[in-house]
Formats: sequence, structure tokens, C-alpha cells
Amino acid sequence: MSVKLVIGDFGKSSWSFRAWLALVSADVSFQTLQIRLGQPDTHQRILAHSPSGKVPALLVDDIVIHDSLAICEYIAETHPHAQLWPEDTRLRAKARAAAAEMHSGFTHLRTQMSFGLNTGDQVDELQEQTREEIQRIFAIWSDLLAASQSPTFLCGNFGIVDAMFVPVVFRFRRYGIEIPPHLQTYVDNVLAHPAVQQWLKLASRQV
Amino acid sequence: MSVKLVIGDFGKSSWSFRAWLALVSADVSFQTLQIRLGQPDTHQRILAHSPSGKVPALLVDDIVIHDSLAICEYIAETHPHAQLWPEDTRLRAKARAAAAEMHSGFTHLRTQMSFGLNTGDQVDELQEQTREEIQRIFAIWSDLLAASQSPTFLCGNFGIVDAMFVPVVFRFRRYGIEIPPHLQTYVDNVLAHPAVQQWLKLASRQV
Repeated sequence: MSVKLVIGDFGKSSWSFRAWLALVSADVSFQTLQIRLGQPDTHQRILAHSPSGKVPALLVDDIVIHDSLAICEYIAETHPHAQLWPEDTRLRAKARAAAAEMHSGFTHLRTQMSFGLNTGDQVDELQEQTREEIQRIFAIWSDLLAASQSPTFLCGNFGIVDAMFVPVVFRFRRYGIEIPPHLQTYVDNVLAHPAVQQWLKLASRQV
Repeated sequence: MSVKLVIGDFGKSSWSFRAWLALVSADVSFQTLQIRLGQPDTHQRILAHSPSGKVPALLVDDIVIHDSLAICEYIAETHPHAQLWPEDTRLRAKARAAAAEMHSGFTHLRTQMSFGLNTGDQVDELQEQTREEIQRIFAIWSDLLAASQSPTFLCGNFGIVDAMFVPVVFRFRRYGIEIPPHLQTYVDNVLAHPAVQQWLKLASRQV
């Protein structure tokens, strides 16, 4: 079986990062096809692999899974040993709701606090909606950590719900957002996770 | 077990419609708690049940599943007989990618072509991006119908991926978007589906 993940730049594509984390966490054997973003032929090159015109896309033999969350679900199903979702049905439902909220929402945060790992752009002042979204993310993390009683990641092992929020952790760090004390251990665990560190290294080589 | 779906107005809340369709299709026994949108206390009333401040939310005993796609996944898991996702792993992955693309995208279409079942608002001219998104939706439907060889719905039985696109079918009808001939049967099947008709009836009583 041929498995290829189409991604954008390490330093720019937060959605590629999320899908890549799911594959690496599950110890999937895969190739990476990187398409540099912001080039004149970027859109055409992505379209050649991904019909939505967006990255990431997972190519499994002749099928294309063209969305980050769907890629994560596919890996969770085909690699159950990796426990990418929590085992408990209700905790899994809560984790999925948090992942889906990240996947579809937080547009102010995503617009005003760009991901860019390799740039130092700053904003003068965060919009009120952005600040509300930051508080909402803290509330999601607090709720999941309380529900799972996990001392490490949101629902136990590092999983899809964590992968979804990893780029947010980097946004918070870059923009100097103060982390509530009870969430600091979680943030530290995310930053120290081997797969996260591996992506960071790849990004630092691609400035 | 107590199962309650918190929804907005039948005529306004396209995301409530999607989740409701999943529950009704799977023959789930549930109560509905409707919160009228656009009222002075709407936000507070939603927050009392759904921590994201949005509808729909599914309340299962003491847990809250606060996102439409996560609600659908929960119902699919707990009601496997309903086959809300296609049985084949790869077709399921494609269906999930289409559902996730709908869940997170098509912002121009969603903004410019509002759902409102009970209003006759029209737009003078569709933006170029909206027209591109319409074509993308036709491409998704064509791709799934070709992959599944289904004569009825996108992947066989009416499922989550269909539920995700039902409000789009109504947008197309309301704004007079021409349906490609090879997709007309699919659109007709959606409009005639008993659960869709049931929601329409509820909406017509709530003008």
C-alpha cells in the first residue's frame, strides 16, 4: 500500500502539521510530498493531488483523503493500537467536539494570530473576538483535562484532539499569550512531544 | 439514558438541521430543546447548555457534545445499524473528507447564500468565489456518486455526508442555482427524503 501525505511548508501550514502529527504519532509508514506555498504554481500543483485545492491531502493508493480531520479519522480507524481517540465513548465524543470546533472555528484567532513558525510578525492589539476565542480554548482544555483526569495530554495519550491544538500552542507562544497556571504543564508537554520537536526541526531548516 | 438535542429555529439553523437529520435517520429516541435565535437572551440561553455558545449541542445524560459533526460521529458509533457512514473503509474516508470540507469551508456560499427557509431574500449577483464553491460542491457530489455507484444518495443509504449537504440543496433551490443534469436525481432524492420533509413541515409552522 502506498501512503503519501501532501503538505505545505513546515513553517506555514498548520493544517499539514496537524495531519502529519496524527500519522507520526500512529507510527504510519508514509512518504511526504511537499508543495511550497505562495508560489505562482502553488494552486495548480496542489490541485494535481488534492481536488479541494488545499493541503493536507492523504493519498492512499488511488484514493485521496483531502481534509485534515478526515485524514486523522482514517488513521485512527486503520491504526487502532495508536489510540488516537480516547477509548471511552463519551470522552471520545467530547474530544471529537473539541477537535471539530477547532477544525471549523476560531477564525479571528486564525486570522489575527497567524501560525508562521519562522516569522516574527506581531499584532499591535488583539481584537476582542480573538481574546474571547483564546479564553474559549483555555476552557476547552480545562474541561477535557478535568473529564479525562489525564496528567499529560488532553485525553490521556497524545491524540487527534491534541494534534488539532498544537499549532494554537505555538501561536500562544509567539504572541506571548499568558497561559493559565493549571494549563502550563499541558502546554509544556505539547512543546516537548517528540513528534512536535521533529516538525520544528524540519521547519527551522526551511527558512 | 436521557438524550436531548439543543437546536435553533427550524428555518434558520442549518447546523441544527444537519445534526437532527443524523438522529432522525438513525431512529434515535430524543427530546428537542429549541432556542429561538436572534433574541436578546439567545446567547445566554445557548450558553446554559452549550459551552461553545453555538447550536446544535447534544446532551447525553451529563455530557455535552457541542458540535454538529461530533454529534453525527457519536450517533454513527452508538447506532451502527443505521450505517450513517459507508461500510467500506476507503469510501468512508472519502465521505468524511467531504463532510469535513462542508463543516469547515464554503464560507462565501454560506455568507452570500443564507440558509433561511422562510425568507425570500435574494442576492443581485453571486461573487466569483461563491460560484467556484458551487462548482466544487457539484464536483464533490459527482466524485462520491461515481465512487459509490449509488443510485440514491452520495454513498448508498442516506448518511452523514448527505445530511451535511442537505442545507446546501435548499440554498441551491432558493437561489435558483442550475443543477447539472447528472446530479438532478440526487437533489430530488434529498428533497423527497422523509426526514427532510419532516423538518420542512416543522419549519413551515414556525414562520
